[in-house]
Formats: sequence, structure tokens, C-alpha cells
Amino acid sequence: MPDLDRLFRPRGIAVVGASPDATKIRGRILAALKEGGYPGALVPVNPSHREVQGLRAVARVSDVAGAIDLAILAIPAEHVSSTLIECAVSGVGTAVVLSSGFAEAGPEAAALQKKITAIAAEWDLALLGPNSVGFLNADACIRATFSPGAQSAPVRAVKTPRRAAIVSQSGGIGFAIFNRGVARGVGFNLVATTGNEAGVTTLDVVDYALKLPDTGAILLFVEGLRAGRRLGQIAGDAAEKGVPLIIVKVGRSAAAHRAAISHTASLTGSEALYAAAFGHHGLLRVEEQDELIDLAAAFTACPPAGGKRIGIVTITGGGGAWLADRLEAGGLEVPELDRATQDEVRRFIPAYGSASNPIDTTAQALETGGRIKSIEALDRAADIDQIAVVASLADVGHLAPEREALMALNQRRTKPLVFASYTLPSADNLAVLDEAGVRCYTSFGGVARGLAALADYPTTRARVLARRARPTPKPVWFELPQGKGVVPEYLAAPALAKAGVPFPPARLARGPHEAAALADTIGYPVALKVQSRGLAHRARIGGVALGLHIRPEVEAAYGRVTEAGQRVTAEPIDGALVQRMAPAGLEMMIGLIGDAELGPFVVAGFGGGRVEVEHDVFTAPAPIDDVEALELLRGLKGASRLFDAPEPLDLVAFARLVAVVSAVGVAHDGRLTEIDLNPVVVYRAGEGVLALDALMVLKED
Amino acid sequence: MPDLDRLFRPRGIAVVGASPDATKIRGRILAALKEGGYPGALVPVNPSHREVQGLRAVARVSDVAGAIDLAILAIPAEHVSSTLIECAVSGVGTAVVLSSGFAEAGPEAAALQKKITAIAAEWDLALLGPNSVGFLNADACIRATFSPGAQSAPVRAVKTPRRAAIVSQSGGIGFAIFNRGVARGVGFNLVATTGNEAGVTTLDVVDYALKLPDTGAILLFVEGLRAGRRLGQIAGDAAEKGVPLIIVKVGRSAAAHRAAISHTASLTGSEALYAAAFGHHGLLRVEEQDELIDLAAAFTACPPAGGKRIGIVTITGGGGAWLADRLEAGGLEVPELDRATQDEVRRFIPAYGSASNPIDTTAQALETGGRIKSIEALDRAADIDQIAVVASLADVGHLAPEREALMALNQRRTKPLVFASYTLPSADNLAVLDEAGVRCYTSFGGVARGLAALADYPTTRARVLARRARPTPKPVWFELPQGKGVVPEYLAAPALAKAGVPFPPARLARGPHEAAALADTIGYPVALKVQSRGLAHRARIGGVALGLHIRPEVEAAYGRVTEAGQRVTAEPIDGALVQRMAPAGLEMMIGLIGDAELGPFVVAGFGGGRVEVEHDVFTAPAPIDDVEALELLRGLKGASRLFDAPEPLDLVAFARLVAVVSAVGVAHDGRLTEIDLNPVVVYRAGEGVLALDALMVLKED
Repeated sequence: MPDLDRLFRPRGIAVVGASPDATKIRGRILAALKEGGYPGALVPVNPSHREVQGLRAVARVSDVAGAIDLAILAIPAEHVSSTLIECAVSGVGTAVVLSSGFAEAGPEAAALQKKITAIAAEWDLALLGPNSVGFLNADACIRATFSPGAQSAPVRAVKTPRRAAIVSQSGGIGFAIFNRGVARGVGFNLVATTGNEAGVTTLDVVDYALKLPDTGAILLFVEGLRAGRRLGQIAGDAAEKGVPLIIVKVGRSAAAHRAAISHTASLTGSEALYAAAFGHHGLLRVEEQDELIDLAAAFTACPPAGGKRIGIVTITGGGGAWLADRLEAGGLEVPELDRATQDEVRRFIPAYGSASNPIDTTAQALETGGRIKSIEALDRAADIDQIAVVASLADVGHLAPEREALMALNQRRTKPLVFASYTLPSADNLAVLDEAGVRCYTSFGGVARGLAALADYPTTRARVLARRARPTPKPVWFELPQGKGVVPEYLAAPALAKAGVPFPPARLARGPHEAAALADTIGYPVALKVQSRGLAHRARIGGVALGLHIRPEVEAAYGRVTEAGQRVTAEPIDGALVQRMAPAGLEMMIGLIGDAELGPFVVAGFGGGRVEVEHDVFTAPAPIDDVEALELLRGLKGASRLFDAPEPLDLVAFARLVAVVSAVGVAHDGRLTEIDLNPVVVYRAGEGVLALDALMVLKED
Repeated sequence: MPDLDRLFRPRGIAVVGASPDATKIRGRILAALKEGGYPGALVPVNPSHREVQGLRAVARVSDVAGAIDLAILAIPAEHVSSTLIECAVSGVGTAVVLSSGFAEAGPEAAALQKKITAIAAEWDLALLGPNSVGFLNADACIRATFSPGAQSAPVRAVKTPRRAAIVSQSGGIGFAIFNRGVARGVGFNLVATTGNEAGVTTLDVVDYALKLPDTGAILLFVEGLRAGRRLGQIAGDAAEKGVPLIIVKVGRSAAAHRAAISHTASLTGSEALYAAAFGHHGLLRVEEQDELIDLAAAFTACPPAGGKRIGIVTITGGGGAWLADRLEAGGLEVPELDRATQDEVRRFIPAYGSASNPIDTTAQALETGGRIKSIEALDRAADIDQIAVVASLADVGHLAPEREALMALNQRRTKPLVFASYTLPSADNLAVLDEAGVRCYTSFGGVARGLAALADYPTTRARVLARRARPTPKPVWFELPQGKGVVPEYLAAPALAKAGVPFPPARLARGPHEAAALADTIGYPVALKVQSRGLAHRARIGGVALGLHIRPEVEAAYGRVTEAGQRVTAEPIDGALVQRMAPAGLEMMIGLIGDAELGPFVVAGFGGGRVEVEHDVFTAPAPIDDVEALELLRGLKGASRLFDAPEPLDLVAFARLVAVVSAVGVAHDGRLTEIDLNPVVVYRAGEGVLALDALMVLKED
């Protein structure tokens, strides 16, 4: 793994292709670095100029002298690979490639991207891009981007215990989030746009941002994550540090999928798997830019919240009622205040105000300090966890009388506190809040989202940490069959049996007489199932005969099921599996999906013939252990059928098997694309489970 | 009804209590009127000054000379009523009362409010307030408010075919909506804050705003509507004119309820009834200020939409994908473009762009006019109804090259067109869009809300107009029983029978022998039900005996049911109702709620003993006709049980009865607070319905 600190905090920067014309992208990037006040060496590389924007230029990267760690490439795609090699040879160990015309531009250009990926790997080059819009590192005074979103004022001086980092695959969106966050008083330490991710990936940057000392939240915009199981590792690290990962993932709609393919060349993975992965690993998913900022503002400026009981202070009844509605709609509570707090509040608000929750101080109380005192009362109140103040901050000078008191308050208070302005706040009022370290929201729904996230995060974090504290389930190895595509049951089941999946006794018969003989050995009644690589589902085509009790039945069935198979596939029929019929029990299912981007997922729930109709299953990234499997079963719609069954079921054995299948998926990540065990029959407690059918699908070795 | 035009477009204004100190509310209101450029006579009324803020002052309202139509009262509550009389006597026919200290301030102050309500009625005075924050009339250059939200720039000059009006019970919120709308380029013709509504109500102002020539949307903020059935009338007028009513109603949460009571003294009505009324009358309900503006921007600047198929033009794949996701989540469609449109678009975008939907022109196409041409192609495309452009408008000068083309485009285009900026737009770019008459959104979800509302409104409007085109169901009169509280079935059923509700034969018995004799007459089997004003529900206390076949059973049952009644009520037992048992059928229910604020509502759906568990009923404001009742039945969860029954049911008779009950509610609005017919048994088609039980609750005469 290349050194990202050298990329994001280089001792010197070469801008390859830097132009004297600051209206062009090639010129803007150099101008932005100068304006940002980068203190290190800054060297334009341009063979046509001896000087660019007042800086001495060199003709080639190899001419660069001194400690240059980073090359920013703003040159045509076809020159990128040779320049990267030149960088590596010259000791410039990191590069940002702004150039487009790679994987996003079609198959030919994709080859170009493969080439630079190989170069980066060979030379251990930290490569951001191509098709990146650059990055911004606030502490290092590096504004290495031509994005207009980054020009929006110098990074606003904010007084917050923590700052946020942004990692975005789309450059425009990454700096747009920054642009909006700055306007709302959120401090940022790092903004990185990863583009096509030929080298440095989203998770690499998240890993780096987690190591920065004051990161309080990481905001992600992704179109597709080629994350595999590393997502779980990184999410665990984030939980360890108490840093929420707040993510927007686009690509749900068919239209978004079209856009994503043409853009970052990232195949948009299946929405359900992303949802499962984010939920499992405790990422906070949101849908809008404003929502990213709502959460970032809360997490970077507020102490951890004790719970979801919100105290409201307002100067207008209408605004207080509105916020209360939105908070309750967002899952929060606005409890009535205890008698003592009400009595206290009543002393510093007018008689026509309200001392309940919302506390309506009325505008009159502003002159007497009643609002600040009300906030302090809520900060002390035992039955309140967080505080929101409804105000109209369009009014220039509105907060001026309370400036000192707000700053003093901020030193003392122990609970999250936010302002909600129903008018658009004026600059002077925002400045007072900035100084006091209090964030201002301009939507009631935004307040609800921010405070709900604060209230919920400790639980989410605890869940992730509890998992991390348990031993990671070990991968379960066994030899996979040769070849690719569908593996028929007679090959799949013995392989899976080695991994610990219990099946009824079964053998492959290659003719009717052999079938009958095997049935005699195995014991009646038996089932007969046609076997072929061309047949994924057999019951619906007549390829399965159940409940055969005597030899002639078996012999006759052999012909029927193999002929049924022959009718639908041109692949050879390998014979028919003779399987001992299992006793009846509750029919569940267990499956595995090996996703090319996100790695293996285990699926489990109610099975049998109606699995697709009921669709009462869970999906979780593998591996999971028995404990987690049981928890997930409790989340099924029909959980009471499992846990409140008249005779207790062997859910321990079922959960164990779910864990085993998930561990199989981890062992064979990349090769195993599908396992389908349906039904898995669950018997009474202590009597175990049996998989009655097995389908396996493999990718090429 | 007083003349609202005289209130909102007065020939002259007196400001009673006007202060020379413009930092005080009493001074700010005069200053605001001056700054707003009000061209009429402006007279400060203040006994202590001969001149106020450069204007000649008079001591009393009666000293005012000339054509003064409006008095704005910024004086203590206790002087308001005498001043109002003075106004009326002096020919000043309208007043805005900014003073607080009325119904919102407790019972004593509520008496003060009753007094001014009476004065307004007696003198036919158009009275806005008390506890109002004033109003703003853009065309009359009247900024009659001290709200800081109104000071946000002069009303921005907007080039839209229509403007929006705001009616808010909360003054702070009303002008906050204005403040935010102006910032987003929405034009407003009228903002009125009605406060405690001692005189002019929300619906009065809506009625007035509907008569203004260019009103394109009306934005409402309400805490409670004492609207009665007038809401339906006004909503119908709005549909007639094609003006959507977009409403925020707060007061869902217990906390909001506490805030509302202390604020506008308006008892917050039941949420379910509001939802039913808004849905029925086609009001568009939203939850946030930003959502009000999202819809207002769409309706005032866009032509009506043909449907929900959206074409997207973007310069960034990530932004296009994100908007597509949000549009589909909002119920809209982003279809792939037809081949011809794709071929056309491909001619003016680079090869690495995308000609599908979203059209990704890439930033490069901006220099060659590719974006404008793409918009034009979508405006012509047969399979696209509306157009959204994703752009980054933080970039100063971004739209300058397209300025002329955008203005020309706006003359020609036939479909709704909006911009969605993922960065915060700069002033110069907003100015270009304003000039071109195109609104800019800054949230993808906001675009989805705006365009979805445009797509849905024609259907909503058509539904309301179709109802209006049918004759209004006539009220159904009959003589109500005397007294108040619960009316027992033996009195309620005969009264309702006169209105057309069919019951089985029944008579009241006052002793066991009379009961047996009546049973002989009525015919067996019979039911026996105890009757008392103290008993609303009798089955659960053992007060009902069913299926009595012979005299001794009836005699024995009489004692049982009347004793059961005596055990739970101290009210006199009037006897027991002997009712012929009806044949079995499908058990439905019909109810009526007479709400003090919103008038009568009819409730109907599945009935019987499990009505509260199933809760499969509809609620609609009365009256509704048979057609509407049938439509509403189709919307029940269990509708297939009604419409796909093995033997067709007499739903025509049931719908007729629903309509009758609703018409009964209209006739007795104010007196009848509850009717409960449960069960109403529905028989096979042509065989009618029978109400087997009737409960009625009356208010005092």
C-alpha cells in the first residue's frame, strides 16, 4: 500500500501541464494552489514556458529538483502513462491524474487505464484518479483542484472539536458537498475525489482520514464500491474511533445505472447487497447533500448524545410546534418537562410564554436573557438529552446581545445543542454561532435527521464493536469441483458435506437398475432427481420424483426424470441422484451470493416452494457467526414462527449452518458465485437440520 | 363579509402607536411602510408627537383626515377595542391588530378577543389579527409588517407567468416562507399573517388571493382551521382556477399541541380528520418550508406538465445518476430516450458523453451550445414530459455564455424546465435564470417534489372538478331527539329511519311481559338490548341477548339485560329494545363525526365486532354522493372482499346509505357529534342493507 501521507501532505508539488492561462483547467489548478497558500515548493512543468504564473517552470518532470512528492497531471490521456513512469523514476512517489479519457470513455480507453493501474502497482505509486478533480487538505494549505466548489471562500474558520472529511468518486459532487458544508459552518480537514480509482480507492482514503487526529465524520459519495470484505474492516476501525461513515450511494434507478456506467466506469452493484452491507457495518446512509451536512454538522460540533429526548426553546409557537412535529416524525421524543424545570423556566419568561416543552420564551425574553437561561435549564434537566433552539436569524443583530453568554454557555454545556432558523440566517448571526461552536440548521427536518443520528449512533457503534470483540469466524475450506457454471447436486452436496453441511444419504445412479439397487442400500422411501450441469432447477420441469417406496417405482421414475431433463437441456445428463426422503420439519433456506464488487453475502430465512413469494429472508455480508445469525433470524417478519413455535426448534443448529455457509463463501471468495440450499429442514431442538437440495454456481478458476 | 380589497389595497394607512424609534416594533412598522414605497397617505397616530419619522402625526384616529382605509394598531391590548370603535366611527373600515395579549394569553385575555370579534362583526370591520405580524402586498407596495423576514431585499423582480400568495396563522413563519421563497426566485403577490383570527380567517384570505389575477399557488401554514365545510367550497374554487393550495399543518405531536395552544389559541383538531379533509379536497400537503417553495417554484414558473416522464441534462455523471435516483424514488420516471432523439443529441456532445437519459453533455459541450441543444431536443421528444438540468452554479460566469440562448429557449419551450445546482448558486447565475424565467433548485429531492407535484396536480384537480360538476348532495333533515349526550337506540333508530336508514322491526319494552308480547308481534327470533342514556356500548357489558326463539327466553333475557345495564350506569334504564333478528350478511359499518372545527365527516368500511382491530375504513368530509362513496370503498384494503365477492353484494344500497348518513351530518352540523351504525349488514345485489344497531351523540342545542 503506497504512502497516502506523501500524497496528501507532499513536501513539494509539480503541476504537469500547468498553463499561464488561469481560466483554463491547466492553469486554474496552479492558481488554486498558489491562492490556497501552499507553503512547499510549487513547480510548473511545461516545455513551452520558462515561467508560468510567476513561477520558474521546468520542461519535464525529470528536470524537477529537490523534494517533490506529488505530481498533478493535467495533460492529455495518451501522455499520462509515460509521465507516471517519469515521476516514479524521478522519485516523485505520488500523483493526481486529472485527465479524463480512461475507463469512462469506452473499451479502448479502458486499456489505457489498465496500463496506468499496472504502472502504479509496479512502482508503488500512490495514484489518485484518473478523472479525479483533485483534493483539498486544509491543514497543509493544499487546494489541489480546479473545482469551483472549492473556491467558495477560504475554508471557514470553525471552532469545533472535530472536522469532517469527504471522499467522493465524483469530483463535482465531492467539492459541492464541501461548498455546502462550509456555508453551513462545518469544518473539513480533507476532501478527496477518487475518480476512476485506477490506484487509490475510496476505502484507502477513508482509512487515511480515520488516522487524522480530528476527523469527526467521514462523508462518502459512491457510485460503486469495489470493496470486497475490506468494507467491514474499515467500518470496524471507524466504529473503534467513534467516527461515523455517512454515505450516499447512487445507482438505484435504471437511469442512474446508465449514467454511472458512462461516468466512472464502475459497474453499479446490486442495490440490495449495498443496503445489506451498509446496514450490517453500521454506515449511515442518507439520500441528499443537505442530509450529509445535517449529520456532519451534528457529529463534528456536538458531544455524544445520551438519547432521543429533545428539549425545544422557541420564540414562536408556530415554529416550536413545527419542529416538535418533525422531531417526532423522525423518531425522537419531545417530552413534557418535569415540574421543577418548568417552575424554574417560568421565572425568566413572560406570563404569556410557555414553560412546557417547547419552551416558548416569546421574543420579549430575549432582552432579559431568558433564552440562554432556558437552554441552561434544559442542559441540567434530567429528562432531556439534546437541545434545539428555534429562532429567526435573518434579523441582523438578533444574536448580538447573547454573544458572550452563548460563548460562556458553550464552555459549560454537556448536551448537544443546535439552532434551527426558520428564516435564512444573516452573516452576523452565523458568525456569533460559529464563534460559540454551535451549528445552525435551516430546516426542521434537518434538525430531526441530525439529532436522530446523534441519538442512534451509540447503539449502531456498540453493535459493530460487539461483533469486532468476538473472534472473526474462520473461513471454511474444502475442495471445489472443477469447471464453471452450475455444479449438479451429486457433486455439490458431497463437497459441501465436507464443510459440515448435513444432507440425507444419497448416491448417483446412472441407470434404472443401479437406481433401484442404491435405493435398497440407502433405505426407502427415496427421492430421485435428474443430474446435469444444464439443469439449475429441476422440480418445475418434472426432473424430480418424491416418495418412492418400492423398486419398480424407482426404476420407472428413473426414466421419467432423466427424460424430463433431456427435454430442456442439451448438456449431458449425468444420471439421477437417489436420496433418502427426510422427515418433515420447518422448511427454511440458506444461500450465498459471491458479488464481484462487494464479496460474499449469506442469505437465510423461510424456504420451500414459496420462498420467492414470501421473500422473508435476510441478507448479510459474510462471514457472520452463530450469534449474529440468530439475531438476524429474530429480525424476520415471521420470526415468531421460529422463536415461539409450539415445540422449540433447533435454531442453534440452523444458525450454526448459516455461519458455516457464510464461512464457505469467505474461503472461496471470487470463485463461488452462488450456493442455494433450499429447503433446509429444521427439526425440534437437539434434532438438528438437514439440507435437502444443493445448487452451486462457480466462476472460472 | 367585509371588503378585503380595502384591507389589502387601502387608499391611505394610519399607524396607531407609531414611534419615532425605528428599532422598536411600533417604529419599525412605519419605517417598513416608508421603505416599501407605499404611495398612499401614511399617517402616524401618536398623542405625544407632532411628527413621527418625518411624517405629520395626529393624536387620535378620529383626527385622521382624508381617505384612510386601514388602521394598523401597535398599541397595548387593553386599548385595542376602543381604538377599533374609533376607527369604525371615523370611516376607517379595516384594521390590522399587531398587539398580542388576547386568546393566546389565557382565559382573561380571551374575553378581550371575544370583545373585538364582536366589534368587528357589528361595524363590518375587516380585522386582521390580533397577534398578527401584518401583511405585504407587492403590487400596492405595502410592507405592513415589522417582520425581519420581510426586510430581505425588495421583492425580487421575477419574470414568471404567475406569483404565489402566502397565508399563515403564525406571523414569523409566514414571512420566513416569504424570505426563503424570494431567495429562490419565487415571486409573491400577497403575504398575510392572520394571527388569532378574531376577524379575517385563513380561508377569507385564500378566497381573496384566488381573485387576484396572477396567483399561481397559495401557500398555507395553519395550526388549526375553524373552516367547517367552507374548506370544500374554497378548494373547489381553487381547482376551478387551477391554483393549487399547498399546505403545512402542524400539531401532530403532543408537544406541538402544547405549543399551538399557547400560541394562536387555536385548538388543534384531530390529525386524521385534517388528513381526510385535505386529501378529499385536493390540498397538497407538505412538511417543510423548503417543500412549500419547491412546489411554489414549479407551479408559478412552469406550464402544466403532461406527465411524469423526466428528461435530464447533466454535466456530471454522478449528479445525473443522483437526480435520476431521487426522481424515481419520488414516483417519477426517467425513461431511455428514443433512438432518433439519441442520434440527434449525439451530434452536439463529445464522444465520451452520453446521449441516453440522463444526457451527459460533459462540461466540454457547454462551449459549443450542446446543453441548450440537448434541452431543445428534450422539449421536442415525444416520450418526455418535463426537463431538469443538473449544473454547478457556484461557478461565477457559468451561465453567461448561454444567457441569450436560455432567454430565447424560454420563449419557445412547451414543457416544464428547472435547473438543479449541486453547488450553491452564485448571484450572477441566478440572475441569468431569473431573466430567463427558469427556477433553480438546490436539492435533488426538491426537484423530485416539484416535478412530481406538477405531474400529479392535473389528476387531483380533475377529481375535485368532477365532484363539483355533480349536484351537491342535499342535506337530509329530520327531527333530532331532545337533550344532549348519548341517544339510546330506541330513540335514535326511529329518527334515523325517517332519514332513510333501514332497520329491522323493533319496539321498546318496559317489562318482561311487554317484551314477550312485542316479540310475538314482531316475529321470532328476536334480540333484546338494554336502553339507557348512560349506555353507549352494551354488548360488552352483557346488555344484549341475541337469537331468542320463544316467549320464556325473552322474559328471562329482559331481566338479565336490564340488570347488566343497572350495574354500570346510574342513569335511568328506559327498558329493552325488542328487535327482529336479521338474516346474516357481510357486516360493514357507517359512522359520522361532527367536528367543531372542520364540520361533519362520514366514516365507512368493514364493521362488526372486529372493527377496531381491522380498522379498514375510510373517512371523508360530508357530504359525499353515492358515486364518491363507491370510489372510496374501492380504496379500502379489503376492497376485493366487496367487489369480487362470489355472489355480488348490494354495494349500491350501501353506498346510498353512506351518502344519506353524510347528508344527515350536514343537516345537523353543530348538533350531531356522532352516529355509529355498526353493523350495517349488506345483502346480495338487489336485497339491500340493514342497520342492526344505532348510536347517536348530540351536543347541547
